[in-house]
This record gives sequence, C-alpha cells and structure tokens, in this order.
Amino acid sequence: MAAEKQVGPTLRTVPAGDNRERLVCADCGFVQYDNPKIVVGAVVQWQGRVLLCKRAIEPRIGYWTLPAGYLELGETPLEGAVREAQEEACAEIAVDALLAVYSVPRISQVQLIYRAALKAPEFGPSPESLEVALFDWDAIPWDELAFPTVAWALAAWRRIGDAPVFAPEFNPAD
Amino acid sequence: MAAEKQVGPTLRTVPAGDNRERLVCADCGFVQYDNPKIVVGAVVQWQGRVLLCKRAIEPRIGYWTLPAGYLELGETPLEGAVREAQEEACAEIAVDALLAVYSVPRISQVQLIYRAALKAPEFGPSPESLEVALFDWDAIPWDELAFPTVAWALAAWRRIGDAPVFAPEFNPAD
Repeated sequence: MAAEKQVGPTLRTVPAGDNRERLVCADCGFVQYDNPKIVVGAVVQWQGRVLLCKRAIEPRIGYWTLPAGYLELGETPLEGAVREAQEEACAEIAVDALLAVYSVPRISQVQLIYRAALKAPEFGPSPESLEVALFDWDAIPWDELAFPTVAWALAAWRRIGDAPVFAPEFNPAD
Repeated sequence: MAAEKQVGPTLRTVPAGDNRERLVCADCGFVQYDNPKIVVGAVVQWQGRVLLCKRAIEPRIGYWTLPAGYLELGETPLEGAVREAQEEACAEIAVDALLAVYSVPRISQVQLIYRAALKAPEFGPSPESLEVALFDWDAIPWDELAFPTVAWALAAWRRIGDAPVFAPEFNPAD
C-alpha cells in the first residue's frame, strides 16, 4: 500500500513528557515509539549435524542462515523460535537452552538464539527458504552465510556442545 | 499531541506479501510493524544489599521496582541497563552476567535482567523514582513490588548468588 509517497510518522520531535526524539505524524499527531526488535532463532541439530536454510527472500537471498526471524506480538521467544523453524524449514524442533544473546545496535536488533534439536529428521524448503539441509561441521558453507551472527551462533554452539549448564554467549569482543 | 482522537495506524489488515494482520493507517497506507518490546534492567547489589526504586510514574506509581526500562534504538541491552540505572536511580553500575530472560506475552514484552553491582554507594531519587534505597534481603518490601517480574528477578538473584557460570532463569513454571 505505502509506496514511494512519504507517509505516516515522519516528523522527528520530542513529545511532551519524553526525553528523546520520536517520529510523529505531522498530519495527525500519532507518536511512533520505535524500539529495537527481537529476532529469535535456533541452532538446530540432528545427530550432530546442523540445520541451515538458504534464504528465498531479501536481504541476503541465496545465502545460508539459521531458522530465525522477528518475534511477533503475543509470542514468547521460545514460541517464536519454534514457529520460525516451522515457517522457514518445515521442521519441528525441541529447544533446550539459550545459546546466545547478540546485539546489533546499528539496526536496533537483539537476537535470542537457542540450542535445539529436530524432533524428527523431517524438514524442507518453504516460501522463505530455497533449500534446507543438515551440514556436518566441516561442510558448513562459511563463505555463504547470510549474516555475521549466523557464524557467531554456530561457533558458540560448537564451543558449548552438550554442556548442561552454561552462560549464553554475547557478541564476540572484536 | 495525540489526544482522544483516533489517529495513526488503526486499520487491522494483512498487507500484501505478509502473513498476518498489521495496523495500517486508513488515511495514508503506512504499515506499522509492531513487535514485542525489550525491557532491560538489573538486580544491583552493594555489599549484599539490593537496590530498589519507588516508582514516580505510572504504571504502579509508589511501588518498588528494579532499575529497568525500554531498550532504545541504537542501544545494546547492556548499555540500556546501565542507562536505566542512571536515569531511575542516579547510580553507576557494573553489569556482570545475564540473570534472567522473562517473557510477558500478554503485553508483548521480553525482559533481559542482568546481575550488577554499584560502582560506588551513590544513588538517589530522580524524575522517575520517588525514592531509591538499598535493602537487606529480609527487608525487601515483597508486598509493595511493582511487577511480578521484579519478585522473580530478586528470587533468581538470591538463588544464583555469586555463581560464576550459570544459565539465566526464565519465567517460573506456574
């Protein structure tokens, strides 16, 4: 619907009682409280191999990623991670721990990545994934991963292994 | 600015290429992608006592809470937790671990609560807090806490103590 025309909250101003600029609609006064978004996803394994999805949608179409996406209203992060595996990989997963919390402040994103396993060796492409596959660690297409956080999460999963109790990892130091 | 009049994206419909209803402005077509918001906060201790703030703003004005609030655009969760302690308690804190991840799907909120300590025994009221104080565990005003997650986080902090490596807690089972 909204095409090229500038619409919605486009005026940058500090609303009364606030202490920072928000986007306000110059026409109607609507204040848009825009906050960081939460991405939920999982490193999903089956017999030691890890599930990756080749993206069918922008950004980074054709590159490999974890099943992950935006948390929706009314969802818990766990529910969101399970839903994303269904939507992107046609897979049913069992989540068992919080593997990592990544922050991408440049795009105002916080990622909650879980450790999970397939409930059964069943998965496949979807409207969001051109291809879905299980990879041995040595076969992961490192040069064709969609986002830095995918590589971080895979490395965290490898380091943490089956540890029953561990602290989730954060962004790498560099 | 936006008073009683119905303004902004108020039409509930599924935009083209999407798979769920979003709020759209009937006047201009602006699509509001509304996702859960992230609250960041900390259980802050000083010599074993815990810092609480008596809320000066709604909701739950006059009740005690942790320094916590909405993560802002461009912030990391750690930066947000430090800022909230400054804004609500005039306190400088050192964060050392992720204590808990709580989900409140009814209000589409995910809370990241950290374990932290005051850098110095300096704190005080602010525009957001009527009163700020350190409490011995046995003196915590359990009946006057602002939100269930405050009690959950305090209990998590007590259970986890100084553990160097631990998994963050999630919502209690009940």
